Amino acid sequence: MREAILLIQTADRKGLLAAISTFFSSRSFNILQCRQYTDLREGRYFMRIRLDLSDMEITRKQLEEEFGGFAATLGLEYSIYYGEDKPKVALLVSKTSHCLYDLLAHVREGDLGCEIPLIISNHPDLEHVADMFRVPFFCFPVEPGHKAEQEEQVIELLDRHHIDLVVLARYMQVLSDRFIEHYPSRIINIHHAFLPAFQGGNPYLRAWERGVKMIGATAHYATAELDEGPIIEQDVERITHESDPDELKRIGKDIERRVLTRAVRAHLEHRVIISGRRTIVFSR
Amino acid sequence: MREAILLIQTADRKGLLAAISTFFSSRSFNILQCRQYTDLREGRYFMRIRLDLSDMEITRKQLEEEFGGFAATLGLEYSIYYGEDKPKVALLVSKTSHCLYDLLAHVREGDLGCEIPLIISNHPDLEHVADMFRVPFFCFPVEPGHKAEQEEQVIELLDRHHIDLVVLARYMQVLSDRFIEHYPSRIINIHHAFLPAFQGGNPYLRAWERGVKMIGATAHYATAELDEGPIIEQDVERITHESDPDELKRIGKDIERRVLTRAVRAHLEHRVIISGRRTIVFSR
Amino acid sequence: MREAILLIQTADRKGLLAAISTFFSSRSFNILQCRQYTDLREGRYFMRIRLDLSDMEITRKQLEEEFGGFAATLGLEYSIYYGEDKPKVALLVSKTSHCLYDLLAHVREGDLGCEIPLIISNHPDLEHVADMFRVPFFCFPVEPGHKAEQEEQVIELLDRHHIDLVVLARYMQVLSDRFIEHYPSRIINIHHAFLPAFQGGNPYLRAWERGVKMIGATAHYATAELDEGPIIEQDVERITHESDPDELKRIGKDIERRVLTRAVRAHLEHRVIISGRRTIVFSR
Amino acid sequence: MREAILLIQTADRKGLLAAISTFFSSRSFNILQCRQYTDLREGRYFMRIRLDLSDMEITRKQLEEEFGGFAATLGLEYSIYYGEDKPKVALLVSKTSHCLYDLLAHVREGDLGCEIPLIISNHPDLEHVADMFRVPFFCFPVEPGHKAEQEEQVIELLDRHHIDLVVLARYMQVLSDRFIEHYPSRIINIHHAFLPAFQGGNPYLRAWERGVKMIGATAHYATAELDEGPIIEQDVERITHESDPDELKRIGKDIERRVLTRAVRAHLEHRVIISGRRTIVFSR
Repeated sequence: MREAILLIQTADRKGLLAAISTFFSSRSFNILQCRQYTDLREGRYFMRIRLDLSDMEITRKQLEEEFGGFAATLGLEYSIYYGEDKPKVALLVSKTSHCLYDLLAHVREGDLGCEIPLIISNHPDLEHVADMFRVPFFCFPVEPGHKAEQEEQVIELLDRHHIDLVVLARYMQVLSDRFIEHYPSRIINIHHAFLPAFQGGNPYLRAWERGVKMIGATAHYATAELDEGPIIEQDVERITHESDPDELKRIGKDIERRVLTRAVRAHLEHRVIISGRRTIVFSR
Repeated sequence: MREAILLIQTADRKGLLAAISTFFSSRSFNILQCRQYTDLREGRYFMRIRLDLSDMEITRKQLEEEFGGFAATLGLEYSIYYGEDKPKVALLVSKTSHCLYDLLAHVREGDLGCEIPLIISNHPDLEHVADMFRVPFFCFPVEPGHKAEQEEQVIELLDRHHIDLVVLARYMQVLSDRFIEHYPSRIINIHHAFLPAFQGGNPYLRAWERGVKMIGATAHYATAELDEGPIIEQDVERITHESDPDELKRIGKDIERRVLTRAVRAHLEHRVIISGRRTIVFSR
Repeated sequence: MREAILLIQTADRKGLLAAISTFFSSRSFNILQCRQYTDLREGRYFMRIRLDLSDMEITRKQLEEEFGGFAATLGLEYSIYYGEDKPKVALLVSKTSHCLYDLLAHVREGDLGCEIPLIISNHPDLEHVADMFRVPFFCFPVEPGHKAEQEEQVIELLDRHHIDLVVLARYMQVLSDRFIEHYPSRIINIHHAFLPAFQGGNPYLRAWERGVKMIGATAHYATAELDEGPIIEQDVERITHESDPDELKRIGKDIERRVLTRAVRAHLEHRVIISGRRTIVFSR
Repeated sequence: MREAILLIQTADRKGLLAAISTFFSSRSFNILQCRQYTDLREGRYFMRIRLDLSDMEITRKQLEEEFGGFAATLGLEYSIYYGEDKPKVALLVSKTSHCLYDLLAHVREGDLGCEIPLIISNHPDLEHVADMFRVPFFCFPVEPGHKAEQEEQVIELLDRHHIDLVVLARYMQVLSDRFIEHYPSRIINIHHAFLPAFQGGNPYLRAWERGVKMIGATAHYATAELDEGPIIEQDVERITHESDPDELKRIGKDIERRVLTRAVRAHLEHRVIISGRRTIVFSR
């Protein structure tokens, strides 16, 4: 089925739903799904619309021009995506493979609608996993004092492949502001703790030392401030005093896996709007 | 804030959202929240709208007449509720008090928007709980061979008090079809198992014998078929081989409590539409 | 059934289990349950034993003397509790009643084995709840500049009633070090966040601002450092972008309720041993 | 670290713990971990002991003879496993790959201590996954009327490879009694529902039709009665009215994955004892 997805936000006021839905119904579009959310504290209105384009004669360009004109009159910020466009996703990894396997297996099974044109690492360790799934693997080690050059190489490669989304699947390098600003709202990171608890390094050891009774993982957009970006998805699992730091790490791997994959799915399905430090994640 | 809530359902087709939202915006209503759901398998469209009536001059009667006329042209089934109306809820109990305490405490704390004009039981055991919360308590024992009379007494009392919702908070009597049909879609029951597992009696013992690793509870609308009514809410908790039937019962009480209270809240907030054997439960 | 519960800890070494279990079996005790945990990182051994005393002629004094002598030879730290002793628990509250209701209802239903000889508050607001459950209520307001005196009054009352456990059921006063040291490992607090996230005040608002996708609550022993004491129990619930701070507070109340009640139960059942900043919580 | 694991069961009586732990301590064994469980309803005693063999001179044969003699005097049923023995696991699959990927990735990452000498299927579809992980793949289609022969081929292959555990990772064939009895308590199946709800075929569609609010998966030992074997692990996830059967299937795949992997891990770590229709699953 051909479909378009619109993500819209604007200042909240009366009549937005009627105005926008009438724009589409008066042109005989079928609205497959429409979700709205009003942030009363901030006075912002957010909307996600899925349109059926199956029997429509309209071209993308026409749709974008017509809707663009309409949006301008209402002061809507928006973006339009098309169901048949498969986003291109680059995976950045270091040495641990659990998130990598899970993402690649989900893509293979058709449960994540994207292409993975390349996997990039600062270590050669996971080349064999890339090979198994027949995905090109690029290794750019970070030499001391040459981090900026390494990032340039990565950026150049990502740009050349028209990458839509960068997923840090346990990539153990802090990205520079320049890198992050190059892909605004297009880098998803997995942090192996329930943020804002245990920001920074070694969260499982610190969780053990603190004696928490649950551990978690957090997928968030990368921003200039480390571990402070808008959160997309979190999950936790119950532990006991018997779970030593190694066991926490093992349990944590399973949480990280599913949290990152869910967050990537939400982004790829165009269900996420960023609003300051928060995300609106529309349900499917 | 004065507000109205509309629950709407109709056959699915193009343009419903625009038509309905335009009905309200053209009359200068502010839509506080609008949720829709299309059941593609059944071709049904469901909608919940919250309208701000604060600054509106319109009377209830005018709103109902105008919307009624509009709804007739589109073939909408609907009901209208008003935020300032507090539904009247009757609690039916037998001997166990955990759900009763939880519901009464939530009402006291202002977390369940309803009045409890009376508590009815087939046993005298829980009179003291009703007394604590200063709610009138009526005891109608079920004498062998006189169940129909007992039900008549209960119905008469419920009707006299204009009860909007009957909550079976561990009422250990099977209701007759006549009773159930008297309150269509207005009786909520809690079953102490994760339906459809362990329908019928003694679910905790049977769960222990079967060796399940989680137990649950289910809140559903009562229908003529026992434990087969549309499910509103379910939850589970993890158990181990060490949890004997008594421990299951104790854990189960905490699950039942929260499942029933959540289901009652969803109903009282007019977030539930019944569709055949299923419920649409809109999020808050 | 008469039973004794022993909580034991000592430096880890070979043969402890055999030595201790033989102590009991050679005296014909029936061990109902025995749990052990070795903290390999700290080299500590922890044990909980439930003994059946039903058919034993031995007095408490004899048991304590005999086991005391044996423990001295092995260098065991231990404490002995008896099933028929009902611990005395004082509840300290301020203005919110949800934890108070839940604890009192659980005691009433026989699901928390303790007595509640009194409820103490710094505000008069919850007197009516204490009255409902017929528990003596004492109100000691905190006058500016006279906090130490207020604490003295509370301590004097707690001591006079031989209180075994103090439960801060949303008591909104920071306790002095003197107070805390007066009841070492005998004060349980509920913090309305998933510690160590959102320590300190206003956690629900801060959780909303940070845009987390789950909120939680934490029950811990009170120590001199605020919100830093050993954690007994935690739990979380999933939220969405639609949950505003008021809704977080409402959801949070249900989490706080069950987390505090579970923690109090674990303590009352003598299942908790404190080890530095961590707790060993043996399962039932 | 060289270690031995003993799983023991016997009729419950006084003194078992002391007798058994003294057997080991008198021979200078270090008990790394000891767990016991008494099923009071059935009067059975269950135990799992992990012994440190690192510095012990004793051979396996000596240990087995000595403990065997001791066990005979007490009437213990037991089995002994050794940490350095890697169990051999055969995976049986049909057409869906999600459980297969998850198991193979966990083995690769060192989080499942076993060897996978072969994958067997009744369809050729998943050969490519086996190839990716370089595991031999055998395809035995089931021709109508020739199921017994197909099973013979499978059994012959399993026996030739000295398979310790057969995992039905979504193998869509009902096994004959003969097959099941050939591997008593050594076949683990994943059922895509929260048993005993939705036994038999098409559980996700039936769950949708029944309108449940959570779906689950169950890993259990295969027995002659379909979907009735002792349960090892279960888990669930919350769904809404919007989750159509396809979405349930997708969510369900993630539950099945983790439930089956956890159950296989528990078995491989010798943490499971079967007792009638129930399992004792000792925690790690």
